[in-house]
Amino acid sequence: MKKYNQVYNEIKNMILSRQLICGDKIPSVRKASQLYSVSTTTIQNAYFDLCADGYIIAQPKSGYFVSDIEEILTQEESSRQTSDIKYDLTGGAADADSFDFTLWQRYIKSALRQKERLLSYSEPQGEYDLRCAIAQYIKEKRNVITSPDRIIIGAGVQTLLQTICPLLDKSLTVSFPDNSFRQGMSLFADYGFEVHTRDKDAGIIYVSPSHMTRWGDVMPIKRRLELIKHSQKNGSIVIEDDYENEFLYNVTPTPSLYALGKGNIIYIGSFSAMLLPGIRISFAVLTKQLSEKFKMLSYRFAQTASKTEQIALCQYIRDGHMNAQIRKIRRLYTAKTKSFASILKDELKNAEIEIGENTLQIILKTEFSKDINIFNQMSLRVFVQEYKDGRIVLVISPSGIENAEFKNAAKALKKALI
Amino acid sequence: MKKYNQVYNEIKNMILSRQLICGDKIPSVRKASQLYSVSTTTIQNAYFDLCADGYIIAQPKSGYFVSDIEEILTQEESSRQTSDIKYDLTGGAADADSFDFTLWQRYIKSALRQKERLLSYSEPQGEYDLRCAIAQYIKEKRNVITSPDRIIIGAGVQTLLQTICPLLDKSLTVSFPDNSFRQGMSLFADYGFEVHTRDKDAGIIYVSPSHMTRWGDVMPIKRRLELIKHSQKNGSIVIEDDYENEFLYNVTPTPSLYALGKGNIIYIGSFSAMLLPGIRISFAVLTKQLSEKFKMLSYRFAQTASKTEQIALCQYIRDGHMNAQIRKIRRLYTAKTKSFASILKDELKNAEIEIGENTLQIILKTEFSKDINIFNQMSLRVFVQEYKDGRIVLVISPSGIENAEFKNAAKALKKALI
Repeated sequence: MKKYNQVYNEIKNMILSRQLICGDKIPSVRKASQLYSVSTTTIQNAYFDLCADGYIIAQPKSGYFVSDIEEILTQEESSRQTSDIKYDLTGGAADADSFDFTLWQRYIKSALRQKERLLSYSEPQGEYDLRCAIAQYIKEKRNVITSPDRIIIGAGVQTLLQTICPLLDKSLTVSFPDNSFRQGMSLFADYGFEVHTRDKDAGIIYVSPSHMTRWGDVMPIKRRLELIKHSQKNGSIVIEDDYENEFLYNVTPTPSLYALGKGNIIYIGSFSAMLLPGIRISFAVLTKQLSEKFKMLSYRFAQTASKTEQIALCQYIRDGHMNAQIRKIRRLYTAKTKSFASILKDELKNAEIEIGENTLQIILKTEFSKDINIFNQMSLRVFVQEYKDGRIVLVISPSGIENAEFKNAAKALKKALI
Repeated sequence: MKKYNQVYNEIKNMILSRQLICGDKIPSVRKASQLYSVSTTTIQNAYFDLCADGYIIAQPKSGYFVSDIEEILTQEESSRQTSDIKYDLTGGAADADSFDFTLWQRYIKSALRQKERLLSYSEPQGEYDLRCAIAQYIKEKRNVITSPDRIIIGAGVQTLLQTICPLLDKSLTVSFPDNSFRQGMSLFADYGFEVHTRDKDAGIIYVSPSHMTRWGDVMPIKRRLELIKHSQKNGSIVIEDDYENEFLYNVTPTPSLYALGKGNIIYIGSFSAMLLPGIRISFAVLTKQLSEKFKMLSYRFAQTASKTEQIALCQYIRDGHMNAQIRKIRRLYTAKTKSFASILKDELKNAEIEIGENTLQIILKTEFSKDINIFNQMSLRVFVQEYKDGRIVLVISPSGIENAEFKNAAKALKKALI
């Protein structure tokens, strides 16, 4: 039986991993029995089941062949995607109504018409006209006044940091006052920087003022001014990751650090959360000094963002759709957070439920004494902020859950908790 | 006059750099004269010229406003793109006939229809079905046998190396036997690795066997086997960047190092050169050990390639278009190289002109005693491999030049050289 399993699994895995593909001949029963040192009966049984399960086909007089498993895989893929996680409460997905696919398609189509442009590599810094459009956009939105020359574009914040790190002096220490941005912390460490949390004397300070903590605390204006003052006195560089600033509509609008500071701020913004998670376009405004260094070293960097998407996004912004899009998702997600919070309150009478400052996250505190694996077992994805002394703190974002599923998702969470 | 220039240029630059945008009011003549400490006449003259040049408009009784400079900029941009370089002989662009835009547009359109999928972030490793398609593709093409689990996708080779570097032991030295891949060398150095050229004892060896040198030398099978043997004996990792292997049709087909080796090879491939420079999708096949390390640390990495383009590319490969595309561009570029080489031979009777092994590059050796800046002055982009003792060696690729322009490009090069 063990031998049978070995043969069955090994061949199945070679097929699933495409080491054997459609039409490939697999060894004859006799040959396989020699290869695996098992009886021909064992091989015959294994082959029979592989046929039954659709992985191979027997062709009379010529042997066994790998069948077209495209269909099996497509089924597996879709079950993979849907069955793994039933409710993702971490905000890892966007709402289906959040994005106008038809409109975006029009811009992509128009970008693909610019053949001449698409035949060459993008500038390492990113497309010039997109940088112009971004400069204008962040001036209007965040009072970040800069020239397109100082902007670099990249496929995600991580990519931008991988461009910035080589430009920075490695003897500097880096401080991450919010230690939840683990990706960023390990990225700097990979480049050999000394990374701390809350280091007053750090040469580089990395902050997300509009999303200071997992549950979306916003840095008050007073602390912003203190930080600017401190960094100016200390000569330290502040990297301002303006993540989720677009959602701050019910808090007093807080100016960006860049607008408050003078010259030593690197400003980082991203469009993925505004448009689609799969569109990877972010940008950074470098300090004058770093921007000059970048230009000197630009031969070392290749542009990472799709050129088609850069061209499309430029026109999308110029035509004013970005502003409309932000208003739309702000309205949509704020309503979703409120609605889900109130359903959770109905279901979990004894829990403390609050909405985070930037209106995207729900903080749920309650008694809990089960195994923490219960969430996985129930196919729920949640972010556990804290779990000790019989109490648990969850940070919940319902952005990717359809409104019609809110009740069921809340019930599932209740079942996991109580 | 100097003061006038200062005012004129400063305001013009603020407008061009979008620090001031359409509709912004600029200081009144009196206020500006205080700000710049100059007479009101100087300001008036500067403002008058700014109006004449289209940067600002005077509105009677309300003052001066920034005008809509979109048009000025669009003109500037297009002149920027075309006038800078007349003939790019470095292969930095693709031929307009090399890519079927309409076909690709169909795949992009179909990808944009998969809304559910686009609403979530791509797996850090890259889309699963694309990895399956790549596994099958490199098995057929390069005999690289692996499972989709070992493949990681990224927006360009640089991005892949930025994922691989943090997985490698930093005490290892890295050897680049071909020192022309400066981007790669400085990237490893940025991560704190010791980088050498031709270090026999290096723990990591980075090679492009199908493009060993700028002019496309191909690593012979004998040296490939030696390298494999050496790395196995030494326990070193070989990074095989299989750049331009697709063009090797008139050389004896040389197997990939990965296919020859056993387990210690990282295989890297890219689609940008096959499709469009602006489509940034590359992949790496990790060793088993590094692939496990990647999975453990995958929370640290975000996918950089566009999800839409990943979905489109997957179906494009599955439908067999990649094979057809490679045949097409191989034919196209080989013919272009040959044709341009023969035109160059006609024009430059005294030069030695050869086609590189991988049929994409032309090596041109000739006497030369002018200033090396002549190429820039004549708006020619060429790669100078060597220049000493009155002789120059150029590496030329005509891929981005239209056939109808060959004669003119060759004449321009002649004029620069003689």
